[in-house]
Amino acid sequence: MVCLVVKAGGAKVFGRWKEAFARIAPDLDVREWDDPTLDSARIDYALVWQPERGRLAAMPNLKAILSVAAGVDHVTCDPTWSRAIPLIRMGDDEIRLHMADYVIWAVTSLTRDAARWQQAQAQAQWARRAEFPLLSAQVHVGVMGLGSVGAYVAQKLAGWGFVVSGWTRTPHTLDGVACYCGSDQFSTFVAQNHILVCLLPETPQTRGLLTYDVFSRLRQPSGLVNVARGPLVVEADLLRALEDGTLRGAVLDVFDREPLPETSPLWHAPRTLITPHIASEASRAARAAKVVATIAALERGEDVPLRYDPERGY
Amino acid sequence: MVCLVVKAGGAKVFGRWKEAFARIAPDLDVREWDDPTLDSARIDYALVWQPERGRLAAMPNLKAILSVAAGVDHVTCDPTWSRAIPLIRMGDDEIRLHMADYVIWAVTSLTRDAARWQQAQAQAQWARRAEFPLLSAQVHVGVMGLGSVGAYVAQKLAGWGFVVSGWTRTPHTLDGVACYCGSDQFSTFVAQNHILVCLLPETPQTRGLLTYDVFSRLRQPSGLVNVARGPLVVEADLLRALEDGTLRGAVLDVFDREPLPETSPLWHAPRTLITPHIASEASRAARAAKVVATIAALERGEDVPLRYDPERGY
Repeated sequence: MVCLVVKAGGAKVFGRWKEAFARIAPDLDVREWDDPTLDSARIDYALVWQPERGRLAAMPNLKAILSVAAGVDHVTCDPTWSRAIPLIRMGDDEIRLHMADYVIWAVTSLTRDAARWQQAQAQAQWARRAEFPLLSAQVHVGVMGLGSVGAYVAQKLAGWGFVVSGWTRTPHTLDGVACYCGSDQFSTFVAQNHILVCLLPETPQTRGLLTYDVFSRLRQPSGLVNVARGPLVVEADLLRALEDGTLRGAVLDVFDREPLPETSPLWHAPRTLITPHIASEASRAARAAKVVATIAALERGEDVPLRYDPERGY
Repeated sequence: MVCLVVKAGGAKVFGRWKEAFARIAPDLDVREWDDPTLDSARIDYALVWQPERGRLAAMPNLKAILSVAAGVDHVTCDPTWSRAIPLIRMGDDEIRLHMADYVIWAVTSLTRDAARWQQAQAQAQWARRAEFPLLSAQVHVGVMGLGSVGAYVAQKLAGWGFVVSGWTRTPHTLDGVACYCGSDQFSTFVAQNHILVCLLPETPQTRGLLTYDVFSRLRQPSGLVNVARGPLVVEADLLRALEDGTLRGAVLDVFDREPLPETSPLWHAPRTLITPHIASEASRAARAAKVVATIAALERGEDVPLRYDPERGY
């Protein structure tokens, strides 16, 4: 019997994971991460979010690690993690559909001044202003990262009417999206956009990529949407750019520390909307189905998509 | 010399209107609404927002009244207004483009719980929840009113992936949008939707159309976007439905009284976002161009579109 251990959402939602798997794969032995009756030598697969350091290395017969999210930095940051074991990113239609819905909400929140109305509403103030908003057709949006999710989001934004370009590590082509790549073309990419949408994986190359200098080179009115990982943005630079008006607005779903501490100045940064890492949640059912399909393919000895590549770092 | 009098935005922005017209129609004699030197017999056209009662009737040679907005209820509510004088609604591409951007912001604000994050942010609280949001493809959106703006909005929402239906006074057909019409089909239309987007003109037939009973027949989770006119919604019913959870959320841009009084309970209604009647502002330049084209057509004796029809009431 194939054994899957789950660390996702904590012990209190484990029952829901167990149900989701029981419905589609009754033969799978699904166990809680801290199950004291479980012999770690019996574990074949681990479905995880932020596993404690050293825990995966202590599972001697692990065949693969499955990330419960699209990013895998929460696994690769563990120095004891073995690169010999396949590490599979989560990815399915729901993730990209949800992400696209979130991103168009975030981008239109920026172009339509939602943070301004949010503040005015809190004070029961009717705060009209003289300027007219930009139409989507006048707004240049730069999507950073054109993987399965980023490419989908970029094309949907272009379909809505935004002027969309994309930036990636390696060359891409994408209908309706002007593609730039590498550090050589980064400045050109940045300078033509009003709004950056960050969908890059977190790697040593992407960490700290978005600085005050980058924000200062955007077209005005400028904006940032971060739906990738907090550390891609230098938080102090982001705050400074929002406070001095270099950056016109931001919609942030991810942070250096999550939950974002109550004392963080980001909660009250000007013209900023904060959401608690909810941009692209796939349903438990959809993720369970993806995990079952991946395990079945691996058991048959097949290759699976979305496998971590140490060369690329994601 | 053709004379146009302007009442839009008050005396303080009249200079900007004058500039906008000077740039494209230097021969047009553009005058401020309260210009004491102007003989009212000289006025050919009036461009207006909420003209004081009796003022239009006191312009003996008026050839047409042009509304600065898509709605004309702010003119027709004046009992002294003469129906013999053509009344022209504002309408151009910018209005519908802006409206579509606003409506997708509003609808995704509802489906992605923006009001919840707004409240959590105000309290610096990381307030994740267990439920997953609906994907746009699972959300049924009913657009009320399929005029030039409503039809455009409905088709753009359908293009994004929402399941869209429309409701109108008279039969319509529209690619990708299931069309319902008349009071006979109103209940059927309402019952299949999660979210209603109100884009109807204000007429004696539409006033008070959206009641507690209507809200209670929507699919859950339900929502309302009102970007038409406040009086189409019974405000007390809306509040009750939001407070008892019958209505899951609302995004409101228009109100019975505008500016919305500081004392209105709507400012603090649960799961509600408030904006100050900014959903579809066209730029002054675009509206001036539209006015100049309309006046030129009328001076040539041509028919113009968007003319008020007393039979329909808009």
